[in-house]
Amino acid sequence: MSRFFSDKYKTLTPYTPGEQPRDQKYIKLNTNESPFPPSPKAVAMTAEAAKNLQLYPDPECTELHEKLAALYGVDKSMVLAGNGSDEVLNFAFMAYCDKEHPARFANITYGFYSVFAEINGVPYTEVPLKDDFTIDVCDYISKNETIFIANPNAPTGIALTSLEIEAIVKSNPDNVVVIDEAYVDFGAESAVPLIKKYDNLLVTQTFSKSRSMAGARLGVAIGNAALIQDLNTIKYSTNPYNINRMTMAAGIGVLADEEYTKNNCNSIIENREYAMSRMRKMGFEMTPSLTNFIFAKHDNISGGDLYSELRKRGILVRHFSKPRLDAYNRITVGSMEQMVTLCDTLEEILKEI
Amino acid sequence: MSRFFSDKYKTLTPYTPGEQPRDQKYIKLNTNESPFPPSPKAVAMTAEAAKNLQLYPDPECTELHEKLAALYGVDKSMVLAGNGSDEVLNFAFMAYCDKEHPARFANITYGFYSVFAEINGVPYTEVPLKDDFTIDVCDYISKNETIFIANPNAPTGIALTSLEIEAIVKSNPDNVVVIDEAYVDFGAESAVPLIKKYDNLLVTQTFSKSRSMAGARLGVAIGNAALIQDLNTIKYSTNPYNINRMTMAAGIGVLADEEYTKNNCNSIIENREYAMSRMRKMGFEMTPSLTNFIFAKHDNISGGDLYSELRKRGILVRHFSKPRLDAYNRITVGSMEQMVTLCDTLEEILKEI
Repeated sequence: MSRFFSDKYKTLTPYTPGEQPRDQKYIKLNTNESPFPPSPKAVAMTAEAAKNLQLYPDPECTELHEKLAALYGVDKSMVLAGNGSDEVLNFAFMAYCDKEHPARFANITYGFYSVFAEINGVPYTEVPLKDDFTIDVCDYISKNETIFIANPNAPTGIALTSLEIEAIVKSNPDNVVVIDEAYVDFGAESAVPLIKKYDNLLVTQTFSKSRSMAGARLGVAIGNAALIQDLNTIKYSTNPYNINRMTMAAGIGVLADEEYTKNNCNSIIENREYAMSRMRKMGFEMTPSLTNFIFAKHDNISGGDLYSELRKRGILVRHFSKPRLDAYNRITVGSMEQMVTLCDTLEEILKEI
Repeated sequence: MSRFFSDKYKTLTPYTPGEQPRDQKYIKLNTNESPFPPSPKAVAMTAEAAKNLQLYPDPECTELHEKLAALYGVDKSMVLAGNGSDEVLNFAFMAYCDKEHPARFANITYGFYSVFAEINGVPYTEVPLKDDFTIDVCDYISKNETIFIANPNAPTGIALTSLEIEAIVKSNPDNVVVIDEAYVDFGAESAVPLIKKYDNLLVTQTFSKSRSMAGARLGVAIGNAALIQDLNTIKYSTNPYNINRMTMAAGIGVLADEEYTKNNCNSIIENREYAMSRMRKMGFEMTPSLTNFIFAKHDNISGGDLYSELRKRGILVRHFSKPRLDAYNRITVGSMEQMVTLCDTLEEILKEI
């Protein structure tokens, strides 16, 4: 830290991204990336876009917003592309939280919410999950706070139903409810259809998981036009050209290939069920995941030890050294081949201990 | 604006980007883009990177930072890549300005500084330029404020010397001085060599102009390791994956092609001198630009009228409707062909009025 750093930020604890080993020798099941390459249409359009990098991107993201609006069946004034969903989530913390509007989210959820709250000087309440790692809907009914819910939740993988989300949104008419659907494409219900009914609902999604574009940084916020206008005010006050030409092209390309995305999501779901079924037989305890990851623990080996044993054998998973979580590992669902190797390796480790 | 928007931001006036007409029928001399395509090495590496978009980018930007460090002759702990230099400039406003450390910058300069100050709730002083649009160095000597200077300045194109910058940095040992060198590659002196001498100097540069990468969003901050660590704290608290895989690849590609960049900069300087010499003969009054734009006015036609006449004839330039600036237009220096067309068109317009 320099001697000039503002007091505001001196106590910040930044977010820690998952390991990104620069050599590619690991089977990477630690950051919930897709095992599938991006759509060939995305790759081709990106290569084409790279030839015109000397020009600024369209700050209004006109074509991308039109395609996103078509995807969600809403008007294009109701979507905003972000530099990853992290950007639009941060915008939402900026726009809808302050001393009078504290934030409320689960104590076990996406680790960035508390960081966004801290950096924006926003008071927040972290609500404990129930013993089975589910969210207690009652904890979010009729609160005078800005609510953030990852649905499905991470790293648990458990989802609320659309009816439960609606109950929360409906009971907080004077506060914004943000539903972060980073993992929604792997089996959970989206809250997007509720947007036309509730002016206080903001949904965020990402192209990082189901659309194989973690490396492109593309997320989206969907909400009524007034909410999107607020987020635009913040975008144009921080980062007007937030979507670069290549990411814009990749996004437009992959949206022209929904069949590819759907097939990949179906494969991930199949691979998840395959791995969970084998792991269940090995005695793993797992949450009912509707995501592209498995949250698992085993009575015979600690979470930290399992992480290390897998790593020694060339498989990276994510372990959180936090109370309640440290018995578990979060394991990304990869290709069928990777899941076979994972399960074989887990069997080997369990035999050896 | 929604009824939920935080009071903090209700009075924000966002930055207005230059027009980006979606049809390409204009000669675009309005946003200081390069007339040259990106380096073929950048294009090739981007196309390759697009094939692996399913993986997150390296949040530490290891290879890119190494190349940047080599370019500037500093350690890699002394550079930080940003999502455009706008991002690192915003980080600097966050890190080094607060109620006790107000910001100080010229009243005619990059329009984003006041927006960054506003969105971060930072008090600021806008210091008038002298009548000839130069910066009075005395206005920045021994101030107890965080100083931002665009050098060369925009939209005037006028640069301070390295000695003048040093006087400012030296006289403010307890405050950070940020030198925004977006346009430095077209003839001005860089303050980067001063970084090893002064721990309060932060320099920012961009790949948007001299490296033909406005569409990729890549900027960089250069400063001593402690300053860069502060900016990293903010990066990891807002946008850890701020440089996507394609931008990272494009940046590494163009840095492997410094010859290409230098040749392009030399062409721009030549084209600038050609256009300024013809415009001088037509009676235009111009500031001594060391940038890739010309800041010009003519006694026989108002700035607004000239803008409109050029636009009618298919040439877009930038006009600012602000006191002192409204007699002028800021005209990007393009290819020689574009400069010939520009000058021919200006002659035509002046003949007709």
